[in-house]
Amino acid sequence: METLSSLKNPKVLSWRSLRDKKGRLEQNAFLVEGVRMVREALSSSFTVNAVLLREGFVPDFVIPDSIRTYLLQEHVFQSVCDTKTPQGIAAVLNLHAKEAAGSRLLALDGVQDPGNVGTIIRTADAAGFDGVLFSPECADLFSPKVLRSTMGSIFRLGFSFPKSLPDALTQLKKDGFSVLSSQLDGDPFYERKDIGSSFVLVIGNEGNGISDEVKAVATHRLCLPMRGGAESLNAAVAAGIMMYDLTR
Amino acid sequence: METLSSLKNPKVLSWRSLRDKKGRLEQNAFLVEGVRMVREALSSSFTVNAVLLREGFVPDFVIPDSIRTYLLQEHVFQSVCDTKTPQGIAAVLNLHAKEAAGSRLLALDGVQDPGNVGTIIRTADAAGFDGVLFSPECADLFSPKVLRSTMGSIFRLGFSFPKSLPDALTQLKKDGFSVLSSQLDGDPFYERKDIGSSFVLVIGNEGNGISDEVKAVATHRLCLPMRGGAESLNAAVAAGIMMYDLTR
Repeated sequence: METLSSLKNPKVLSWRSLRDKKGRLEQNAFLVEGVRMVREALSSSFTVNAVLLREGFVPDFVIPDSIRTYLLQEHVFQSVCDTKTPQGIAAVLNLHAKEAAGSRLLALDGVQDPGNVGTIIRTADAAGFDGVLFSPECADLFSPKVLRSTMGSIFRLGFSFPKSLPDALTQLKKDGFSVLSSQLDGDPFYERKDIGSSFVLVIGNEGNGISDEVKAVATHRLCLPMRGGAESLNAAVAAGIMMYDLTR
Repeated sequence: METLSSLKNPKVLSWRSLRDKKGRLEQNAFLVEGVRMVREALSSSFTVNAVLLREGFVPDFVIPDSIRTYLLQEHVFQSVCDTKTPQGIAAVLNLHAKEAAGSRLLALDGVQDPGNVGTIIRTADAAGFDGVLFSPECADLFSPKVLRSTMGSIFRLGFSFPKSLPDALTQLKKDGFSVLSSQLDGDPFYERKDIGSSFVLVIGNEGNGISDEVKAVATHRLCLPMRGGAESLNAAVAAGIMMYDLTR
């Protein structure tokens, strides 16, 4: 196994640049950190290009011989990780994700906070959703903070990145899907009319909500009740409440 | 109106120390920032001791003559605020909160992330809950980050800080409340038995969940379904899903 001790090693430099979207697109790769993420990556549909180990770290699972493994001195390992206190293992994966498919879909229309995006994906997985569509304005799925917040759910859902979310939703509508827009001026969520068994729930931007183009495509415009004096809910919380009710 | 231009002014020093729990307890006061928070504070049951304005800032609402108002030079105003780009108005409030009362209560059993605590309070308000009980291990309700995350909901709910949460829950149970413990090894949430009209929902620590003492008091131990491969939900998301379903 190759041991890397220099911060200027070309491989180390290339892994470090995976923290930025530019680097990920150039290399068509992304990096996941931590025992759980690497273990799940290895049994997922993603292609694992390399596993990186901090010198002295022994994983409690077997890394297949077919996967190239590198040992990194501690300061070198730290330099490629985004977390402040990395666990000692990371993996470089091919950027290609499984396409969003199935009858229970979620769409993110400009959700920009990485923590929200990751938490929503984690919740979608737990609620039994099949896939997530991203509008181009969303936080990048493959950024370190989003990946971390998914808690591994990135490996279990499908993802699509249409150039135009309204066009993608229009196609789904033609295919028989209900398109549910979550918006503050919508109709009462709990009194919604039948949505059928195939649907896509759209969650909007934290500040501006759903875009007009998406609202125009929607078959249902829905809002959770706001009692007390609260004006809105956190995007990830609202998404969670709706997703769980739709699949209960 | 007094204009304060020195960072060493005793008043300025005392307000700055409200960012820490020690300072808040010593002065029996806390500070809220921003137009919305100050406006809501003025029409709430909290006692407003002072309003602080950045020189040049003109609020779009009337500050009652009875409330002492101070003008602060920009660098002085910045020094008392926790936000990086404050809006130009803040208020110092008496630390006394309205007691948690009513038939729909929430209890936080060691929820430690300030963003989670604030988001949960905001959601409780929107879901129509009446009050929140804090165990001693929770993030401090009056810390800047929690206050900010409540988005003003702190002014609309009641709060209690029992020395022992299990004792407080035991008393509520004697008073006819159902005590619902949200725990990963609980019974299916959507198949719960009748809980009646008075209940307290307990949300546990992000890593360790509900404490054994609280579990022992609970009348219902409940878990949301975990489909896909997700092992758990974010505490604020789980709380939101349960609260909305309990009050729908």
